[in-house]
Amino acid sequence: MFKYKATFAYEGTRYAGWQIQPNGLGIQEVIQNKLKIFLKEKIDLTAAGRTDAGVHARAQTAHFSVVEKLDLFRFKHSLNALLPHDIRLIELVEVPLDFHARYSAKGKIYSYHLRLAPLQDPFNRQYTWHIPQASFSLDLMREASLLFLGEHDFKGFASESHRGVASRDSVRTMKRLTITSGEVTILEFEADGFLYKMVRNIVGTLVDIGRGQLLINNIVQTFERKDRRIAGQAAPAHALFLEKVLY
Amino acid sequence: MFKYKATFAYEGTRYAGWQIQPNGLGIQEVIQNKLKIFLKEKIDLTAAGRTDAGVHARAQTAHFSVVEKLDLFRFKHSLNALLPHDIRLIELVEVPLDFHARYSAKGKIYSYHLRLAPLQDPFNRQYTWHIPQASFSLDLMREASLLFLGEHDFKGFASESHRGVASRDSVRTMKRLTITSGEVTILEFEADGFLYKMVRNIVGTLVDIGRGQLLINNIVQTFERKDRRIAGQAAPAHALFLEKVLY
Repeated sequence: MFKYKATFAYEGTRYAGWQIQPNGLGIQEVIQNKLKIFLKEKIDLTAAGRTDAGVHARAQTAHFSVVEKLDLFRFKHSLNALLPHDIRLIELVEVPLDFHARYSAKGKIYSYHLRLAPLQDPFNRQYTWHIPQASFSLDLMREASLLFLGEHDFKGFASESHRGVASRDSVRTMKRLTITSGEVTILEFEADGFLYKMVRNIVGTLVDIGRGQLLINNIVQTFERKDRRIAGQAAPAHALFLEKVLY
Repeated sequence: MFKYKATFAYEGTRYAGWQIQPNGLGIQEVIQNKLKIFLKEKIDLTAAGRTDAGVHARAQTAHFSVVEKLDLFRFKHSLNALLPHDIRLIELVEVPLDFHARYSAKGKIYSYHLRLAPLQDPFNRQYTWHIPQASFSLDLMREASLLFLGEHDFKGFASESHRGVASRDSVRTMKRLTITSGEVTILEFEADGFLYKMVRNIVGTLVDIGRGQLLINNIVQTFERKDRRIAGQAAPAHALFLEKVLY
């Protein structure tokens, strides 16, 4: 038995997310179907985590096991030749049998891309959330972002599905949250783990604060009461990138 | 009578080019149809030049005349609200009545985007030409590019439609041809004018030289004999950008 870690980049636009879906095409499904063509056996990919419909990945990782040792170069070449152009296998390495794409992960990095300008850029519209308000305050957003650093129970910034889950399962440590402004303003999040929809909920809240529609105090309240309804709306999926899984 | 210069950015992917086409949708047609909706009159746009099917523009310019003076802010806002997201009006200014988007132009800048790497980037695949060859020589391409600088009869690098056209009509001056390498390698061309398919034919030739499939001498021969068949194939349209029209 041999185990491999595969790293994929994909544009999520056309897909119903990473996971195999009853309705819509899952990225996992597309890859597994292509693997079956040239490995002549059904392969199960286990990813570091799911990405939602429309979310992109610059480096999603997944492990899989096969009976025979792979020719890494040939495998990469063959799989990329079969995959659609919006999914690429960018790295493939052999790993110890106890490696697990999800449980061995030490953390993840996500980025969220904003276009803070009166007009959307036709060439980046598929990857950025357009915020046209001239009154948008980057300073307020930066100030508010500091509140997310460190260890917190992020339940209030997770999807409803986390309600009722014990606190020990919704505590995460945000190690870094940087905001780099430019033609595209990039928010980069590094944490030991992320709850479902956590990045999009944090971005939605930060953008509402920048727009003056929410107060910084709403973040404090959301952490205290663990209630999503005090925070902002989730930011759209199409501007979110899974940048890296850390091991 | 009032005359205006409008500057548009567009992603050409979905369109049959700038010009109104019998088959396929022209960008000019899309804009004119939207203008008619809120100006209640048929507007004729005259562009600095056509762009081919699939070619993009960061700043294509066009002029038009109207009987009544426009509210510039309202006009920009209304037109952008009606236009599809892959076309944006980025600037609108009043110009003297003798201004002509094509004849007043002093030159143009085009850029061509190459991806020189084993794998295509899923996020840039719509805007770059992927050259996977590991043996590709950027140095040879740079050396060859110098031959295009200055005043030349570019007939050998134009589309077949220029055959038989008098030389005085195919002489152009290439003022700048820069090659900037990176994740995307960008070739930028500035000239007082460009013949039909000239940039794509030059890029095709340069890439063939970089790949070792053509010699630098082929450029010399193409200039001398004015015969396209000695030069390389035209590079694909989807990686070409009209960057700016100079007045």
